Amino acid sequence: MLQKPTPEEMELLKGQDVLSARDLSFAQLQLIMKTAAYYEDALVNKRRLYDMDGKIMASLFFEPSTRTRLSFEAAMQRLGGNVITVSETPQMQTSSTAKGETLHDAIKVVDGYVDVIVVRSPIKGAAQEAAEAAEHPVINAGDGTGQHPTQALLDIYTIIKEHGHVEGMKVALLGDLKYGRTVHSLVYLLKHYGCDMIFVSPPQLKMPEEITNELKQEGIKVEETADLKAAVAEADILYVTRIQRERFPSQEEYESVKDSYIVNDEIVAAAKKGMSILHPLPRVNEIAVSVDTYAGAAYFRQAHNGVPIRMALLALTTGNVR
Amino acid sequence: MLQKPTPEEMELLKGQDVLSARDLSFAQLQLIMKTAAYYEDALVNKRRLYDMDGKIMASLFFEPSTRTRLSFEAAMQRLGGNVITVSETPQMQTSSTAKGETLHDAIKVVDGYVDVIVVRSPIKGAAQEAAEAAEHPVINAGDGTGQHPTQALLDIYTIIKEHGHVEGMKVALLGDLKYGRTVHSLVYLLKHYGCDMIFVSPPQLKMPEEITNELKQEGIKVEETADLKAAVAEADILYVTRIQRERFPSQEEYESVKDSYIVNDEIVAAAKKGMSILHPLPRVNEIAVSVDTYAGAAYFRQAHNGVPIRMALLALTTGNVR
Amino acid sequence: MLQKPTPEEMELLKGQDVLSARDLSFAQLQLIMKTAAYYEDALVNKRRLYDMDGKIMASLFFEPSTRTRLSFEAAMQRLGGNVITVSETPQMQTSSTAKGETLHDAIKVVDGYVDVIVVRSPIKGAAQEAAEAAEHPVINAGDGTGQHPTQALLDIYTIIKEHGHVEGMKVALLGDLKYGRTVHSLVYLLKHYGCDMIFVSPPQLKMPEEITNELKQEGIKVEETADLKAAVAEADILYVTRIQRERFPSQEEYESVKDSYIVNDEIVAAAKKGMSILHPLPRVNEIAVSVDTYAGAAYFRQAHNGVPIRMALLALTTGNVR
Repeated sequence: MLQKPTPEEMELLKGQDVLSARDLSFAQLQLIMKTAAYYEDALVNKRRLYDMDGKIMASLFFEPSTRTRLSFEAAMQRLGGNVITVSETPQMQTSSTAKGETLHDAIKVVDGYVDVIVVRSPIKGAAQEAAEAAEHPVINAGDGTGQHPTQALLDIYTIIKEHGHVEGMKVALLGDLKYGRTVHSLVYLLKHYGCDMIFVSPPQLKMPEEITNELKQEGIKVEETADLKAAVAEADILYVTRIQRERFPSQEEYESVKDSYIVNDEIVAAAKKGMSILHPLPRVNEIAVSVDTYAGAAYFRQAHNGVPIRMALLALTTGNVR
Repeated sequence: MLQKPTPEEMELLKGQDVLSARDLSFAQLQLIMKTAAYYEDALVNKRRLYDMDGKIMASLFFEPSTRTRLSFEAAMQRLGGNVITVSETPQMQTSSTAKGETLHDAIKVVDGYVDVIVVRSPIKGAAQEAAEAAEHPVINAGDGTGQHPTQALLDIYTIIKEHGHVEGMKVALLGDLKYGRTVHSLVYLLKHYGCDMIFVSPPQLKMPEEITNELKQEGIKVEETADLKAAVAEADILYVTRIQRERFPSQEEYESVKDSYIVNDEIVAAAKKGMSILHPLPRVNEIAVSVDTYAGAAYFRQAHNGVPIRMALLALTTGNVR
Repeated sequence: MLQKPTPEEMELLKGQDVLSARDLSFAQLQLIMKTAAYYEDALVNKRRLYDMDGKIMASLFFEPSTRTRLSFEAAMQRLGGNVITVSETPQMQTSSTAKGETLHDAIKVVDGYVDVIVVRSPIKGAAQEAAEAAEHPVINAGDGTGQHPTQALLDIYTIIKEHGHVEGMKVALLGDLKYGRTVHSLVYLLKHYGCDMIFVSPPQLKMPEEITNELKQEGIKVEETADLKAAVAEADILYVTRIQRERFPSQEEYESVKDSYIVNDEIVAAAKKGMSILHPLPRVNEIAVSVDTYAGAAYFRQAHNGVPIRMALLALTTGNVR
């Protein structure tokens, strides 16, 4: 049985919101990883947990995200807690927000029903707004083009599980690095571990310069390339994201680049020995199905890691690690 | 620890439906208030409850009402019970009612799955119809222009919590008194306590005469006015509801009155000392956000009171107050 | 207290998927019936069960089916387990499948969150596809024109409860026998018990010849008729399904037959003494409401039987009958 965090360590997140990967200190990050490992050990050994017994989580998804919603809800239930759910499509707007109510009012009401709030919104800044309205901890499950910190946390956790550590890893990030919320959150966490990074994208979708510059200033070794094959030859981790048609000015321009960024058997064959492939999912065609059987194809294991990471966040922010 | 109701008291609601505020006797009303206080004490002191352990509540929302639905579901879970949910928009009609099935048949089926049924419908009389089909208790969570008894009950509970008692209170009801389901339910409960009432509305949206007459015949002192400032000068409670544009024959007519019924700092300044402001929520702009910091602004506390009230109703109707 | 299945018996379904009524052996069928009776006895005697304590069921309804979904969710909760839910209309597509993800990927992810998966889909073969992606047991809750095995199982259970046994029963199946998924699943189970069958339908909607032939080859006595009154005179069970307008080439053709297949007081009067009437529900007008008071009208009891049957399937496939 793995060790759980000490009471002193737990103070680092107790009563806190989790809004952005960037806000997390390295000590908080390590605490989350340790607690997730502790809970995963409990899951693997089928120990019944009561850490959130009698507690309620509000699962407020103002845009659909089945994967994230279900893994938060499963996490709360694995901790012995209960869940109340709002799951809406933009067309639906079943919630009172449809009646012209502000998010602030809606959250202030729900805050009185529950012990912790998970919020997903298509609007950047919504999680921050929710956190200001609520007395209970708020966890950001994605706010438009803003942040998606729990995804970045499970990405880090996956690297630890696949390789034993994050330090010293060379991480190639592939795809839409310009608009990709996931990769932006992730590089801020990787930075803590001093990882070398390779940014692989079509020129139109390069990592924003202010991020690249900030990383370099903090001493991170950053390479930028459009050549996927060259990148995988030296990467320990390949983090794949989707390149969307609508990001390109014309269908021709999209067609001209898209095949260069598909991870298939040829790319796997060119990869450094032991390279892991990660993907936040859902995958459309940016990773060929034939790659699924490759030992380093970690994306489904990565998705499953969402449960212990979210268990850790729910229990730590509410001060309920038992 | 507050006292729970006696077994004799509990008999007053055991096996009963809660369909209309008007049907409730004063003894039942007092029982609900006492039981809600008992459960709120448990919540505040974080006593884990098992009163509905192993029981299931059907949360059947045939029209969206996030606030009411979530507070019923949280109430059931705080009692240790489970919930199965239908939450539909008119466009969705995911339920079997979309296949041409009657509400009677749908309820008769669900009745066999659960221990208590909460039903919300856009159709007046739906809760009554559900109660006729079900053997288990049915609680009306709003049926169109019909009743919304649990809202009225939490309103009364809020007055008790804010002022210690309901008797002797002068209650001003503001807004759309003609069509407002909420205020119609509420006056029938206030009547039990002999409260004086002031009805504040534009002339187009006055309280229906049959209600006003009935109250007067039962000895209730009723004033009617269009002057909000005069009303708040003598009211102990101001109960605010929304005035909807669509109730007026023309935009001009609406514009001409709407500003006279907004509760803002000026109105608060003119209010009797200690006046409480209640609102069933959601609020759009009928109470200025600046009023939220006023000590008497009770509307968010009021919303939170929905949980102990609904706990009381679930446990009393099923005979499970432990 | 009824006997629960022996450990040896339980092995027959442990770790198995339930995809099709046709795949079930007679021994498996008997095991399910025995276990359902054991759980129903627990429900009736209000014994609190912990068989699925700490476990999670994914309730994935990619098309609406309130009745089936709620009874699965209630079943899981009656066993002490938890539920995470996706309930979608075709218009919604809130799930990640809307983003172009395959069902295979979606199931592979959810499989890592839960202990058992219930899946409903408008697409034939979806349950099979889900079972191939998942390591945990998958239960088919209906896949388009494919199978709906849990309905057929609760039908058999209902016959046992109403008559004490299935063997020797003469079962009349009424309505749309050509396209009706329910009746196709059911005849494969009835076959195990050697029941005589009467197929009652308009000529346009007769049971497919390959099914009729297969039954006859296995020694089942099969009659086909368009005369409902004659059929009920000798049937022990009348299984009613809906005849849908859209199955007919013209409104006239539909109008000409539809009244011949409505079960009303006249049909009940012509029925063999003690005949049971079953219907998978929802019912529109194919059974007159006046028939509901007939002692043999078993369709609501039949719907309620969905809970113990689904409890049996959840506990048996996951090896959790305690």
